[in-house]
Amino acid sequence: MQRGTNLGRLGDFNQAVIFESIRRAAGGVSRVELAESTGLSPQTISNVVRRLLDEGLVREDRTVVLGPGKPRTVLELEADRLLSLGVHVDPGMVSVVMLDLRGEVVVSKRVDEPSLEDPERALEAMASAVEELIEASGRPRGRILGVGVVAPGPMDRERGFLAAPPLLDGWNYVEIVEPLRRRLDMDVLLEKDTIAAALAELWKGPERGRENFVFMYLGAGIGAGIVVNGEVLRGVSNNAGEVGHFSVGMDFVEEGAEPCRECGRLDCLAVAFSFARVAASARRRGIDLPEELEATVAGRAAGMNRLVELALGGNGEASALVRGGARMVAQVASRLSNALDVDEVIFGGPLWAALDGRHLATVAEVINGGFVARDLHGISVVSSDLGHQVGAIGGACAVMDALLSPKASALLLR
Amino acid sequence: MQRGTNLGRLGDFNQAVIFESIRRAAGGVSRVELAESTGLSPQTISNVVRRLLDEGLVREDRTVVLGPGKPRTVLELEADRLLSLGVHVDPGMVSVVMLDLRGEVVVSKRVDEPSLEDPERALEAMASAVEELIEASGRPRGRILGVGVVAPGPMDRERGFLAAPPLLDGWNYVEIVEPLRRRLDMDVLLEKDTIAAALAELWKGPERGRENFVFMYLGAGIGAGIVVNGEVLRGVSNNAGEVGHFSVGMDFVEEGAEPCRECGRLDCLAVAFSFARVAASARRRGIDLPEELEATVAGRAAGMNRLVELALGGNGEASALVRGGARMVAQVASRLSNALDVDEVIFGGPLWAALDGRHLATVAEVINGGFVARDLHGISVVSSDLGHQVGAIGGACAVMDALLSPKASALLLR
Repeated sequence: MQRGTNLGRLGDFNQAVIFESIRRAAGGVSRVELAESTGLSPQTISNVVRRLLDEGLVREDRTVVLGPGKPRTVLELEADRLLSLGVHVDPGMVSVVMLDLRGEVVVSKRVDEPSLEDPERALEAMASAVEELIEASGRPRGRILGVGVVAPGPMDRERGFLAAPPLLDGWNYVEIVEPLRRRLDMDVLLEKDTIAAALAELWKGPERGRENFVFMYLGAGIGAGIVVNGEVLRGVSNNAGEVGHFSVGMDFVEEGAEPCRECGRLDCLAVAFSFARVAASARRRGIDLPEELEATVAGRAAGMNRLVELALGGNGEASALVRGGARMVAQVASRLSNALDVDEVIFGGPLWAALDGRHLATVAEVINGGFVARDLHGISVVSSDLGHQVGAIGGACAVMDALLSPKASALLLR
Repeated sequence: MQRGTNLGRLGDFNQAVIFESIRRAAGGVSRVELAESTGLSPQTISNVVRRLLDEGLVREDRTVVLGPGKPRTVLELEADRLLSLGVHVDPGMVSVVMLDLRGEVVVSKRVDEPSLEDPERALEAMASAVEELIEASGRPRGRILGVGVVAPGPMDRERGFLAAPPLLDGWNYVEIVEPLRRRLDMDVLLEKDTIAAALAELWKGPERGRENFVFMYLGAGIGAGIVVNGEVLRGVSNNAGEVGHFSVGMDFVEEGAEPCRECGRLDCLAVAFSFARVAASARRRGIDLPEELEATVAGRAAGMNRLVELALGGNGEASALVRGGARMVAQVASRLSNALDVDEVIFGGPLWAALDGRHLATVAEVINGGFVARDLHGISVVSSDLGHQVGAIGGACAVMDALLSPKASALLLR
């Protein structure tokens, strides 16, 4: 149903717009520049800036003279005034970061080969890791807006638990948000890994503005984060981005391969890039990846990391296998770019980060070569700059996004 | 870049919101109800309604007494006051409709087996068809907002031509919008068939409101229309919805099948559901679909229609082939629903309309069975009610959408 505009919320919205502009202005910004960039009146800017100064979120940093006219006072963000935390649980690694208002990492922590079999203990360990990080940061607890916990889907984000996640067996319907909220006594939200990664890129991306892109997330699982017109596409249950049963093509399937137990195909991404399939190929090529690794999530993640290490170390067979995996993911990215007509695809996540930029040219070729509207525009294919922290940064961004960012929808009456 | 709110445009936006609410209220609506549904003040409602009455877009229809209090005047849309036209060019058929403000079809026309080989003549024929329809409607030309021309992509919507469309060979880079604008002397816009179909469903769908869905369009070509949070996803060049190279699964590929010349796969939708492949299967099953049909777009479309007729007439082999085609499209719909996390898939377009509801249960089973987040919600799978006119209706809706509908983005300063 169409709704009219909510005049009472215009003030809040404009304040959020101005604060967001200050947060995004790297070298400080003057009131005149804010009026230009937001289109708001000098009077509105002046009133809002006064409030932000009073709240200690902004400081008057220095005065600059630009040609004739009154010298301009440069406003600087008090980036440390508010902080947020992100905890990313990927079966291959747990990453925790604290971000300041600018989105810069204040402190961070990484746990390789985490114990995730017992969810209750894992949640305890997460809470401790958060406490340690706060301690290490030396920042007062009162400045922390909240914690964004990032995990593979599917999940029930509203109720705060994972729903039959294929990568975290024991976590089925285990509550995550409530126990952490109680333990930490702060706001906690849950976010899907691929959506968090897209949020992180939206915030940290270059200033030219990424508006329409697909983020191909490579971790223990593979999924896509989708951004349309500058907003993350969440889907009706916050589970958008499931691409596990997209086909990669039969040329990636070796003889005797088992079909996917879910969809029945031989060449869906989930089975073609599964550790079992990759490890079997590796063993046939003389690479030692013990079958025992296949039994646990941690083992599979460790095995995949081992293969990447071998490839980076110069093992030609391992390198070919890893390149094959990258090409499989590129096939899926190609389908998505055609369906969504984006002009950018970003590759990232802990597994991609470990590859250190390799195979980027290969995946770019697959994606642009298969783009149906290529006569109209190309697709820029890039690696995320955020490394293995992309998910955790996205979790912290989700907290700031929920609490600070202006939402045009808030302008409409409820 | 974040922008503040544009106070000067609030009036226009609220007027558009109120008018849209009147357009959508089937049995008329009172000022009190408008205030409730839009959340706007009685004073604003009163002022805007006065303007709409003056412009003849609305009339005061009757007075009703609902319990105590002042009797309410029911406002009725003067649906005939403004009209728009849609022309849908599918290689298998050309459909032209005139819609009133309510979105009801005033008059319509359908041309089977249209001549599209010579674009210049085809454009002339389109212009004549539009003129005839206006004539037949008996409506004054001055009431017509414009014409929405709907065609398969890819297209350059801004510049008004098709760009290497696989289904309309001779139309490559042929201008469509400008020649029609000159001939008809009215506003003309170009819209992709799948996007138009999604727009039509957005406008004509049941009042409960379709917010997140995929429209699987089956005509001479197959594509998807995507709607996210109540808005059509256009993509950066208005070409979203290209799914021709999604895989349908190797179980649909018979021995000796040729791979796709574009993507190299044996089981992409474009090749697996191509007329050549379907006709070869049909011939192996004793169905007479002459090879000559394969030479032209019109022949291929006519051949596919012939197969559907045979299936409807009780030919078991033809019916099995058509069901197979429906299942292929359902496979693609399944991938899309997982990637986008929608809760509705609508099947439609001229080819689907000819099937008259058959195979809906089959495709619903494929889509729900393959949905990764099925523990969280189901996907409602339905047939479009708009039949072969869905594209043309969408073209006319696109014109009204561009000129009448409130856009929240218009609230932000440019």
